Parts: sequence; C-alpha cells; structure tokens
Amino acid sequence: MADTLTPVAENKCFGGWHKRFRHASAVLDCTMTFAVFLPPQAEGGARVPVLYWLSGLTCTDENFMQKAGAMRLAAELGIALVAPDTSPRGDGVPGDPDGAWDFGHGAGFYLNATEAPYDRHYRMHDYVVHELPALVEEALPVSDRRSVSGHSMGGHGALVCALRNPGRYRSVSAFAPIVNPTQVPWGEKAFSRYLGPDRDRWREWDACALLAEAPERLPLLVDQGGGDSFLNTQLQPEALRDAAAAAGHPLELRQQPGYDHSYYFIATFIDDHLRHHAAALTG
Amino acid sequence: MADTLTPVAENKCFGGWHKRFRHASAVLDCTMTFAVFLPPQAEGGARVPVLYWLSGLTCTDENFMQKAGAMRLAAELGIALVAPDTSPRGDGVPGDPDGAWDFGHGAGFYLNATEAPYDRHYRMHDYVVHELPALVEEALPVSDRRSVSGHSMGGHGALVCALRNPGRYRSVSAFAPIVNPTQVPWGEKAFSRYLGPDRDRWREWDACALLAEAPERLPLLVDQGGGDSFLNTQLQPEALRDAAAAAGHPLELRQQPGYDHSYYFIATFIDDHLRHHAAALTG
Repeated sequence: MADTLTPVAENKCFGGWHKRFRHASAVLDCTMTFAVFLPPQAEGGARVPVLYWLSGLTCTDENFMQKAGAMRLAAELGIALVAPDTSPRGDGVPGDPDGAWDFGHGAGFYLNATEAPYDRHYRMHDYVVHELPALVEEALPVSDRRSVSGHSMGGHGALVCALRNPGRYRSVSAFAPIVNPTQVPWGEKAFSRYLGPDRDRWREWDACALLAEAPERLPLLVDQGGGDSFLNTQLQPEALRDAAAAAGHPLELRQQPGYDHSYYFIATFIDDHLRHHAAALTG
Repeated sequence: MADTLTPVAENKCFGGWHKRFRHASAVLDCTMTFAVFLPPQAEGGARVPVLYWLSGLTCTDENFMQKAGAMRLAAELGIALVAPDTSPRGDGVPGDPDGAWDFGHGAGFYLNATEAPYDRHYRMHDYVVHELPALVEEALPVSDRRSVSGHSMGGHGALVCALRNPGRYRSVSAFAPIVNPTQVPWGEKAFSRYLGPDRDRWREWDACALLAEAPERLPLLVDQGGGDSFLNTQLQPEALRDAAAAAGHPLELRQQPGYDHSYYFIATFIDDHLRHHAAALTG
C-alpha cells in the first residue's frame, strides 16, 4: 500500500519529519491530502504511537502542523501526529450550493452522510477512523496505538469518533469542541443536509447524546476559551458537562479565561494535551 | 502617541497577548501593520525587553507569530516580540513592475532606497531601527532593551541593522540570512533598483562588507539549514564565515543538516535564539 502514497512535501522539524502525502481515498471517492509528523524515534522504522488531529471548519491538513506548535513536544515524547483534511475535496465533490464556509468543502463534520448528493463522498468518519489509520499503519513507521484530538468541528469529531468506537483510541481530548451539534446552528445546517430531516438520526453524531450509553468510559479532556466568540452560540460546553455528569462519564472541562477560538489558544494548551495522550499511548 | 495605534486584532496566548496594530508611518509614507507579543510579565505596565523579528521575502507581520512557535518560551523568559511587515504597502506604493515576489511589496530588504520611485516609501531600515521602536516604546509596556533577529531577507536585515547601529541592540541572530546580498541574485536585483547601479554604495547594506569595519563586535548567532534550496545560490554562509574570520568578529555559525528554508526549520531552533537574546536582554 506504500506506493499508493504520493509525497507532496517534506520538512525536517525537531529532529523528525513533517511530510504531506496525497492518495486516492476509496471511502471518500476522491483524492485526499494529509500531513504527518514523524518524531525522531521513528527513524530506522521503529513504530511510534499516533495522535490523530481533526481540524475545524475551513482548515486543511496544514493549519495544525503550521500553527499549533505541537511538534516540539511530540518529538520529545516520541508521538507521531497525523492531520487529515476536513472534508472530501475536488471539482467532483459537491460543496455548499451557496459557497458558504460552514458546509461542504472544509466542513465534513466527521460523519457518514446518508443524503444525496453528499452520501457518495462525505464519509469522513469512516475515513479518519478506518481508512486513513490503515493506510498510515501500513505505509509509515507508526503503530496501532491511537489517540484522537481536534478543534471546534474537529473537537466534535474527536469526541464522536472515540465515543462511537470503543477500544479504538487510548485517549481523547478536544479544544473548543461543538459538543452538541444537534442543538446549534453549525450542526443543524450540516446534519440536515448530510443526514436528512429526521433529527433522531442526528443523535448518532452528537457527543452529548452518545455519552448516555457509551460502552467505554474513556476520560475526556476538554479546553474551552472563555473569550471564544462562538462560546454561547455554537459550543455550549455546559451541555457536555451536564451530559457527562448524567452519564457518570469522566470529564475534565477546563475553562480558560480570555482565550479565543484561534490557534493561539490551541498552541497555549497543546502541550497539556500531548502529555495527556502520551500517558495513554506510551505508558 | 498611543492613540496613533489602531488595534487590528488581539489574541490571548501563553498568558500574554498577541496584538496587531495599524498606524501611519511617516518614514514610509504609508499605512503599516505590525504585530507584537506581550508576555505575561508586561501585565500591569511593567516594561519588558523586546526582540525585533524581521521576516523574509513575501511575509507580513503574521508569519512569524503564527508559525515560529516563539511565544511559549518568550512568555517564560519575559521578552516581548515585535514583528514588522517586510515592506511599505498599499496602492500608492510602487511594487515590482512585473509583479515578482522578490522585489517591491513584501521585499523591502531593510534598507533606505535612494532611487526613484522607490526612495519615497522604501526606507525600511529607518522604520525598523528608529520609527517603530520609538512608537512601541511610547505606546506599549516595552523597554529600550532591544535585540534583533530575522529570517532570510530578514536575517540580512537583522545583521545589517545591528552592524550599522552600534549600541542599539543587545544581541543579534539570524536564520538562513542573505549574508552577502551584493553578490547574489536576490540582492543584485533589489539593490540595483533601490540603490542604483553604483555597487560601491551597495556595500553599506551588506553584512559581509560591513563586518570589516564594524565599530562594535556584537557576537553573531546564525543557523543555516543544510537542506535549504537557496543555500548555494542566495545564502552562501561561508562568505559570512570568511568575513567574520578576517575581521576577527565573533560568529557562531551552526550548520543544521537536513533542514530547509521553512518555518519548520525556524521553529526547531527558535528557542536557542530566544535564550541567546534573553541572556543579553535580561542579564
């Protein structure tokens, strides 16, 4: 499978390598680009554990690698980072009919769409949970010890991927996640189009709804900026707090006064998340 | 003078603040935008020392702040970071007649132009050495303890600003600097247009030429990636090594095998530079 990865770029970084690859995705039925950071511990082919990072609306594989400042500590801890794109892409992939940035290209919401015309390509859940890990575990010196984190739409993705797939991740965390997408504008717009009008079916992709019957009680680490302009309209972390309390699910929800929704916020706290994941991945 | 700064953006970051300001520059005769990181030690108005960062071709004030990962340690060390733009900007500022990226907008080369039509606006040396520090020292809680660093064209800028202005900076460093612009294509193109055909006058803006008679022997810390695609054509660090040796000027030139010209290289070694500057700024 290694020859199915086309190198796009590589940069030496903190003694390891940042690399971008293009590949044909069978799940998404289009060409995809993803980025990986391989720490120095992967030199010589030793397999290292992986933190999968799911980015937010409008992002590609590049934002996290360029702006989060995660490689310094990942190199020290011996953890690979894998950053997929945030949706299927390309001329053949339908986007938002109005060209909006919160649906379609750059806004796959890490679910499997059921409604035409989106069901053919928008299967980001299966891509990030199954196809991409299988690919990188075969082609690159990484192991099947996986953790998952993400930001905003990708924080939603990280929580949902972990809650839906018990045993697949060693740890999970999120920055400013959309915890309750069935109840907020971003989620309502995306879910109604990707999944159709039946709101009962939306609940399979909502972290707050999934918490009630989660078969695995993986502790959640969540950071939320108190100065985030989306706090009250789209994010509403208190819904996650209440759902976790009701379900008896372990949650560390950290309110960070003054921090906004940007990568400056992520960069400030990424080391805490990396150490959280390292304890699960390498312990 | 504080009311001459128009806030553009602010983000809390590592307990301090990343801020962008717009202002009217008298020296450049246009509106300019710059960025600053104020570490937590500046809370309450205590004045902190400043590292001025000069970026490379095509950059704005944003690249360094977003990609270098410098704020984490700057916050710990109590150092402010100030990142100016790389040229005068705007519709009224002449750029490259062919729209090239290595001259004009984004390519001011940190000199004072003498040739029309560039001499009216392209006075980046006076802007970054005098006007901008005076502005930030009056309007923001920073002191007149200054250091300077930069990348590529900005590495050239850092070396030249320090060599031309004895006593003005406590320390200087550079990443992949254009050390000998009078002898390489980027410099020849820019200097011939900004300064005219007389190559003798170019030498005032060439670090290798300035080293011979530098009145101050501030030690130079320079990192150069061995995998930099511009190494042999534009950068030629051996010219700096030879000029420093001939002048008896202290130079620590570090070759970093495999590293390229990108911010992944800068991020890897920025902490070493911050510690170098902190020793001079806060010692």
